[in-house]
Amino acid sequence: MNLEETLKCIGPLDEEAMKISRKRWDSIAKPLYSLGKLESLLVQIAGITGSQEIDLSKKALVPMCADNGVVAEGVTQTGQEVTAIVAENFLTCETSAAIMCKNAGADIFPVDIGVAVDTNIINRKIAYGTKNMAVEPAMTREEAIRGLETGIAMVKELKDKGYKIIATGEMGIGNTTTSSAVAAVLLGQPAEAVTGKGAGLTSAGLEKKIATIKKAIALHKPDREDPIDVLAKVGGFDIAGIAGMFLGGAAYHVPVVIDGFISAVSALLACRLAPLAKGYMISSHVSKEPAAHMILEALDQSPCLHCDMCLGEGTGAVALFPVLEMAAAVYQGMSTFSDIEIEEYKPLS
Amino acid sequence: MNLEETLKCIGPLDEEAMKISRKRWDSIAKPLYSLGKLESLLVQIAGITGSQEIDLSKKALVPMCADNGVVAEGVTQTGQEVTAIVAENFLTCETSAAIMCKNAGADIFPVDIGVAVDTNIINRKIAYGTKNMAVEPAMTREEAIRGLETGIAMVKELKDKGYKIIATGEMGIGNTTTSSAVAAVLLGQPAEAVTGKGAGLTSAGLEKKIATIKKAIALHKPDREDPIDVLAKVGGFDIAGIAGMFLGGAAYHVPVVIDGFISAVSALLACRLAPLAKGYMISSHVSKEPAAHMILEALDQSPCLHCDMCLGEGTGAVALFPVLEMAAAVYQGMSTFSDIEIEEYKPLS
Repeated sequence: MNLEETLKCIGPLDEEAMKISRKRWDSIAKPLYSLGKLESLLVQIAGITGSQEIDLSKKALVPMCADNGVVAEGVTQTGQEVTAIVAENFLTCETSAAIMCKNAGADIFPVDIGVAVDTNIINRKIAYGTKNMAVEPAMTREEAIRGLETGIAMVKELKDKGYKIIATGEMGIGNTTTSSAVAAVLLGQPAEAVTGKGAGLTSAGLEKKIATIKKAIALHKPDREDPIDVLAKVGGFDIAGIAGMFLGGAAYHVPVVIDGFISAVSALLACRLAPLAKGYMISSHVSKEPAAHMILEALDQSPCLHCDMCLGEGTGAVALFPVLEMAAAVYQGMSTFSDIEIEEYKPLS
Repeated sequence: MNLEETLKCIGPLDEEAMKISRKRWDSIAKPLYSLGKLESLLVQIAGITGSQEIDLSKKALVPMCADNGVVAEGVTQTGQEVTAIVAENFLTCETSAAIMCKNAGADIFPVDIGVAVDTNIINRKIAYGTKNMAVEPAMTREEAIRGLETGIAMVKELKDKGYKIIATGEMGIGNTTTSSAVAAVLLGQPAEAVTGKGAGLTSAGLEKKIATIKKAIALHKPDREDPIDVLAKVGGFDIAGIAGMFLGGAAYHVPVVIDGFISAVSALLACRLAPLAKGYMISSHVSKEPAAHMILEALDQSPCLHCDMCLGEGTGAVALFPVLEMAAAVYQGMSTFSDIEIEEYKPLS
């Protein structure tokens, strides 16, 4: 489906499946709601897939990898050559996310959606990196739409391969700068409120990063009411691809997991394109990046994991997988009150 | 070791092992500290065991099961017969904790430290339940010490069997009442500040619970400076056993995981007996029980999991196991900067 068709077919969650799933939790021999967010997450997944049978057997992580022209401004500690190195390391289990996937029994599908050089990962390259947003728009509107459609198509492809839940991730030097720029515009916040040190900037580096974001926004005046305009002018291909995955998850009824700051900004962008997409997003962790809280609040998300992680790659999203599987094991395997002859707990009065 | 010997041999964490472990994290190809608390937890485990090699291969959960005489006051929604039913269900995988253990590859060792009837679980029974603290002290001082020593011995036994990390858990109708009473005394807080609805009380039930705690404290005047006095007068056998496990963990250099409210109160009690024991406690989750935050703060703990769980049994502690294992997989399996020829990230300035 193209973007327009996708947006059109995003509807509300399946209330009936959620009701049955809620009922199942309530019949299980334990105090009501006592597994808290683990219960809500599984009810949400039932609502997403339209079935109270929770199946997490096949899990995937899709790190969207892309370069950002804005690194020319000196807003990062590391050079842009690192993007391609790490992107290819996803395949050889030499990144944190890849090791965590192996540990969680998840498969990893790194996508080159715009790395500055050729790579050996899944090729969906839109361009060899974006343009420097401090000088010109990061990408054309057409490229932004292609980026979104790349994410939508990835979800379709993985669903067809039998994947039941998909974690989002990214690799792209400079992508906390673009994410902060997108967040500033979408939330109507000043750059300093939504910008952090990323992967180890000094305080002087942080100031330069903020100034660059302000410059880009002042130069292009992205239209807050037009998310694609924001994405094109101050975003990145990784953000486009991830936002597309959230739209695809909502359209194809696959739970897609939000990772950290960059992923959450992409989720917010997807919500601005399709407000109902929000229900199809699974939150995982609160990143240490300072604006993470603000974005999650805008998304009405209250994640389970508070580990002060800020690694990116999808590590936070993947860390949720075993926790979800544990919850699913209880949901599927636990005896109900009637099985073990204890009177049911009553709802709190 | 008896209690006195145990308390004497609790020393500080192994600084050298922690330094080496910290160095290993810093050499791994990812931004510094970017796995946040997952890194700190593994460094802590290195300090506990005295080795930078993190081995989580054998994991155990020990639910301490006991009855509480105070249920005669009508402070619970469920009758005391439920304690024995659930305690025995741990063995047949019919409790949430047992299912989660199976999922996490952990073994479960439910201990009858004071259930009101005979059970088929590990027999370390001190008495058939405590006395009703609203009328008389819950147990004698000698019983309190035996309870602590039971926990200490369990850790020794499991360590001898090769277990590398032990989660605490409990089952005992009425044990949020005793835990709130112990917390109120140890923290010097009024009962209402540390008492919640437990497993589904109504507001009227909550008032009765608070009044009962106040009555017991007023009647026995437990000495805040003497944790064993507090435990004996308003505690429970499960709290004694769990507190003993934390002391045993510190003495035998085994990481012991704090579960929810009852476990955290027991941890606090252990800390009051041996302040250095604090370093040997691994925090897992923030329980929904209202005083959980307060206790965790007193313990300087900032848990990873914020799932609004309040099931008990050890479910929160066991939920941390897969997250820890994932962190260990990165710690052990990840290439270092020198392996992949990227310049090391520098510490933040």
